[in-house]
Formats: sequence, C-alpha cells, structure tokens
Amino acid sequence: MATTGKQLFTTLDPDGTLTVAIEEVSVPEPTGNQVLVKMEAAPINPSDLAILVGAADLENASYSPGKFVATVPEPFNIGSKARHGLKLPAGNEGAGTVVAAGDGDAAKVLVGQRVACVPGNAYSQYCIADASACLPLGDHSAEDGASAFVNPMTALGFVENAKMDDQDAILHTVGASNLGQMLTRICKEDGIGLVNIVRKDSQAELLREIGSTHAVNSSNDDFMDQLRSAIADTGAFYGFDPIGGGKSVDTAFKAMEQVAVSRMSEYSRYGSNQQKRMFIYGRLDTGMTMLSPSYGFGWTLSGWLLFPFLQSAGRETVSRMRKRVLDTLTTTFASHYKTRVNLDEMLTKEAVTDYRAMKTGEKYLVTPWA
Amino acid sequence: MATTGKQLFTTLDPDGTLTVAIEEVSVPEPTGNQVLVKMEAAPINPSDLAILVGAADLENASYSPGKFVATVPEPFNIGSKARHGLKLPAGNEGAGTVVAAGDGDAAKVLVGQRVACVPGNAYSQYCIADASACLPLGDHSAEDGASAFVNPMTALGFVENAKMDDQDAILHTVGASNLGQMLTRICKEDGIGLVNIVRKDSQAELLREIGSTHAVNSSNDDFMDQLRSAIADTGAFYGFDPIGGGKSVDTAFKAMEQVAVSRMSEYSRYGSNQQKRMFIYGRLDTGMTMLSPSYGFGWTLSGWLLFPFLQSAGRETVSRMRKRVLDTLTTTFASHYKTRVNLDEMLTKEAVTDYRAMKTGEKYLVTPWA
Repeated sequence: MATTGKQLFTTLDPDGTLTVAIEEVSVPEPTGNQVLVKMEAAPINPSDLAILVGAADLENASYSPGKFVATVPEPFNIGSKARHGLKLPAGNEGAGTVVAAGDGDAAKVLVGQRVACVPGNAYSQYCIADASACLPLGDHSAEDGASAFVNPMTALGFVENAKMDDQDAILHTVGASNLGQMLTRICKEDGIGLVNIVRKDSQAELLREIGSTHAVNSSNDDFMDQLRSAIADTGAFYGFDPIGGGKSVDTAFKAMEQVAVSRMSEYSRYGSNQQKRMFIYGRLDTGMTMLSPSYGFGWTLSGWLLFPFLQSAGRETVSRMRKRVLDTLTTTFASHYKTRVNLDEMLTKEAVTDYRAMKTGEKYLVTPWA
Repeated sequence: MATTGKQLFTTLDPDGTLTVAIEEVSVPEPTGNQVLVKMEAAPINPSDLAILVGAADLENASYSPGKFVATVPEPFNIGSKARHGLKLPAGNEGAGTVVAAGDGDAAKVLVGQRVACVPGNAYSQYCIADASACLPLGDHSAEDGASAFVNPMTALGFVENAKMDDQDAILHTVGASNLGQMLTRICKEDGIGLVNIVRKDSQAELLREIGSTHAVNSSNDDFMDQLRSAIADTGAFYGFDPIGGGKSVDTAFKAMEQVAVSRMSEYSRYGSNQQKRMFIYGRLDTGMTMLSPSYGFGWTLSGWLLFPFLQSAGRETVSRMRKRVLDTLTTTFASHYKTRVNLDEMLTKEAVTDYRAMKTGEKYLVTPWA
C-alpha cells in the first residue's frame, strides 16, 4: 500500500522539551485478525492527557500549524524519565470504518462496518486495531460510538467490581463528569446506591435530573454533614476517585469512618471495624495523595485501571458489558462534546489549553478528516 | 472480695486536658472463663502510646507522684473527640500469675500458673483476662513472657499474611525495631526473603548478625540504589510500615515500581503490571501519609491491625502461631528492655518523655509491684 495518513506523535526529550506534532505516515497493512480503520472520531479523555501534554507549560510554548513545542517543568519531566526520547502515539479510543482486514475470519467479517476501537493511536487518520477488541456500531454514527469504550466500560467496571466485592453502594468523588453521569444511570438501572460528590449546585441539579438521589456539593458549608448523611443512607463504604492528588480520598475515608463510629456502642482506640475501600482511577490532580491518621486501620486504597480490571473480570463478563454498552449507546452511555477539532486544530494554543483544563461537560472530539 | 489494687487511667477532656493517673481500684471477681491475673510485667509498646500519652505537651505538663496533667494540642485533641470525657485503662499486654478463676473449666485449670495475657489494662496490679486468650508460660519468667503477644504475633502475622497472598519476600520499613528483629529471625527460619530498611549502620550491622541478608540504610546517599537492588534480589513487592506519616510507603512503592519498570521491554504510560502491596500497621509519624503519582495504578495500600488479622486467619492458624511463640520465646521472640519502672515511676517527666520518643532498642517494662 502506498497510502499515507496523518498521525499525531508526542515526544519528550530528556531536557524537558515536549514536541507534539502531526506527521504524514505510511498506512500499515493489517495482518491476521487485525483490521485497518479509517478513523472518523476520537474523544480527548483525561486518560489521554498525561501522554499528550502532561504538565507542559502551554502558556510559553511555541505553536505552528500542526505542531507545538513546550517545556515540561520539573519534577514532572524527571518523573517521565521512562518515556524520554520515545516518539509516542496518543488517543486511546475512537470510531471509524473498517477499510481493510488481515486474513483472519474475525477481521474479514468487519470490512465495511463502522466500529468502535481502542488502538492507542486514535489521533490518526488510519489505525490498526484487533478485531476482537472492535465493537461493531451498526447504524450508529462515529460520533455516537467514539467514546464507546473508555468511559462506558470504566463506569460499568466500577459497578461490576462493587458487585464482585459484595457491595451494594458506591461513592464517586467527581459525580458530574461524563463518566459520573453514566455511572449515575447504571446505578439507577441496577438498584445500586450512589453517593455523588460535585462542586456546584448546577451539577447536583443535573445529576438529580438523571436519577441521582444523593448528590452532595463540596462547596457548601455543611458538606461533611451531607456527605455523612448520604453515606449513612446508602451504605457506601466503597468508592472511586479520579482526582488522586490532595485530600479527595481522605475526605471520603473520614466521612465513612465517622458514620461507622457513630454506630458503635463502645469507644475503640483502633477506630471502627467497618472496612473502607477506595480506588484512585485517575490523576486529575498530580499532587501528592494525602491520607490523615483519622480513620483507624480498617481501610484499603488501590489504583484502578480499566485494562487490568477487564483481564481479571474474564471474557464472559466483558462480553456482557460490551453488549450492554451497545444496546444503550445513545441513552445510558451517551457522551456529549463541547467542540470538534481536526488533527491540526487540536494543537492550537486555544484548544490545548482548553481541553487540558478538563472542565466538567467540556469534552473535545477529534475528527481527523474534517 | 475486698482486695484492691493500683491501676492506671488516662482521661482526655474536651478542652484538651489529658490526665494520666494511678488509682486504687477494687479488684473484680472473675466469672465464667475469666481469670484474675496478678500482673508482674507489662511492656510499653508503640501501640500503647496513642491512648496513654498521644501528642500531649510533656514539656509543660504538671507532674506529681503517680499522676501527670498535660495539654493535647490541636488538631490532635479534636481528632480524639471520640474519647473525650472517657476514663480509659491502658496497656495491651503483660504477664503475671493467675490468682483466681471463674467456674469455667478453661479458667480453673490456669489457677496458679504464670500466663501471658492481653487484658487491655495491663498497667495494673490485677487484671481480668479471658482464659482462651491466655498463654501459659511454663517455667518462663514474667519478663520473658510480658511481650509474648503483640510483637511476636504481629511479626508472625506478617509472614502468615504474605504466605496467604502467595508472596515469598517482605519489605519492612523499620527493620531494627524489636518487632523487626523478630521478623528477621522468622524470615530466616522460613526461607522468606526480607528487605530491612534501617537508619543507621549500627542497626544494619545488628540485623546482619541475626541473619538479615538485605539491610539498607536510608541515611546513605545511595539508599535508593541499594533499596532497588535489594528488592530486585528478593522480589519483595509486598511490605509493612509502622511509620504511617510522610513518605515511607511512597519510597517503598517507588523503588518497587522502578525495579519492575527496569524489567519491562516496552514503555507503558500506565506503569508496570507488577502489583505492589503495602500495609501501614502503626503511626510512629502522625503526619499525613504522602503518596506521589509516580508508580502507576498497580498498587494497594491498607491499614493492618493484629486483632482483625487473627480473626480472619482462623483458630487453627492462631493456635499454630501461639505454639511457635511459646516454643521459641527466649530466642526468636526474645524482647529486650532498657528500663524497668513501677506504675508511679512510669508517670514521671523523665520516663514519659523517654518512652514516648520510641527510640529503637529502648523499650520500657512496667513492673506493677516493684
């Protein structure tokens, strides 16, 4: 094939110089159970941003068409030592049309179909993807299917993980995010209790409209009271946090323990026997996670990532999850976008600065052929 | 019974006034499977200190015979809100002679025997203990048996927990403590790899003398290199930390991840797939636990407490552990004491200030009848 297509690459040099640029690359041929997807839409998720821009100084970067060069300050640069000098693709997921396939049957049957996929280089005009990981979208548009994987499977993964751990309620520290809205709908459908933490009354209102019974606003003076009350109502001693840095997890553990202690008849120097479990699944705040010594020793905090979870969950569970996503793609799992940009437009100062801010409800969609 | 005996009580008032005092109390009668133990020796463990003195301002306290009154500064006072106004006993464990028993057979058979026990009010002349939790000491002295429970069962518990989790190596962040020395001997006996972190060359030397193969000194410039090398040698991606606050756990996770990443053939933005596990089992540092975003999402951190662990381990495992402790009480599980004090002497400014400093190798023993 002599065909070529545009692709985004991000390179961090040892001195902290970050170069993000669109290049014209030759389109590879799919083999075996691989398919070649002409990409039509790819979202910019928080999970894409670390590799794409990280902590780069965007204000003082130099921008040219299809390219920017910025400096990544310390200690973030040295913290990314493992990628120094590597020219990396970006974009976890997207949707497009299969235009070629390897000779494997699973691949050949997809030719001509629109699919959602997880190629890892979705900010490209063409991607190679594994047929087994492609989700045929039927009559859905590429925009409908662009975010069919990361957020839907993560939100569903939380509920699956909670059920595996015999929990019937979940706490989510960023309730109004795209993922948080999906989680709200899933929990409502499945009868799982959900405590949503938000930062604005408008976000609490939005969540209530889609069925959230406990959306508590961390900006209110009585936040801790409301949080304790919501935890007591639902029994949510198990939660997920995409912030990571700061005291987000600490606040959740504190409130959980205070609810548990209020139910104890006798004082114990070791705190309650209530097991408290939190998972950090993102790093919206790249600062230190701070845990205070104020909830005893009955707690566990883990990192949580989608792919290892799916591996541990097994093929049958994953198939069931994928079917559920497809069946309700434009309702339960609907994503909304603030703006559409093509590959060149996504590297302008205005665009990069805006999507790196990760404002709730302001997701970008990359349309590589527009 | 009209008999009375001395007992220590610690009371924290809502305004932060901490009163620790020896009182004469009437000795209760044991019932059922309870025994009455005339206490002969009780250690002051780090786990006793939170309730005993906490963060009280010992420098400006007022001391009188058998009593001191100090102020607990904020935020520690408000953090202890749950105990405000409660007059609490102290002293987890100790050893003494059974002088009376309830009418249960398990209790009656212990009369006249010397036992180790875990009454929770060991800083007393007489204690009530459950017969099922007493360890008959045979010909051992009370001093030999005084610390037969907390440190031995905790150190053994780490190894049991590691084996349950299919680990064959452990990292311990305070290697030279009394407990750390026991852990070193147990790991040597059981063929479990052990990475000991110490703060002085003399501590590393001490540990090497009792069989530690990897004792790394955090005060050395090449500490991180040495720590990585020790983790690589042993495969210790699983560890225990009694410090809690600061970056002790963070350092362990970092070194573990760096070892795992150095073995990867390809860069991953998500870090290694190596699961990293740490447990905080104490709070020698009551500051915030700080976790940096530099080891991906493949980690889990939990609190760890002896009693919940023993409950989950089951009766058979606990019996086996107790037998092992008794069989090697003066070798593997030997404890050493810097000083012996009676109940009045333990409340002098000099004594309280000294044992609260929790210096390695400087444990106090309380001898209530001396």
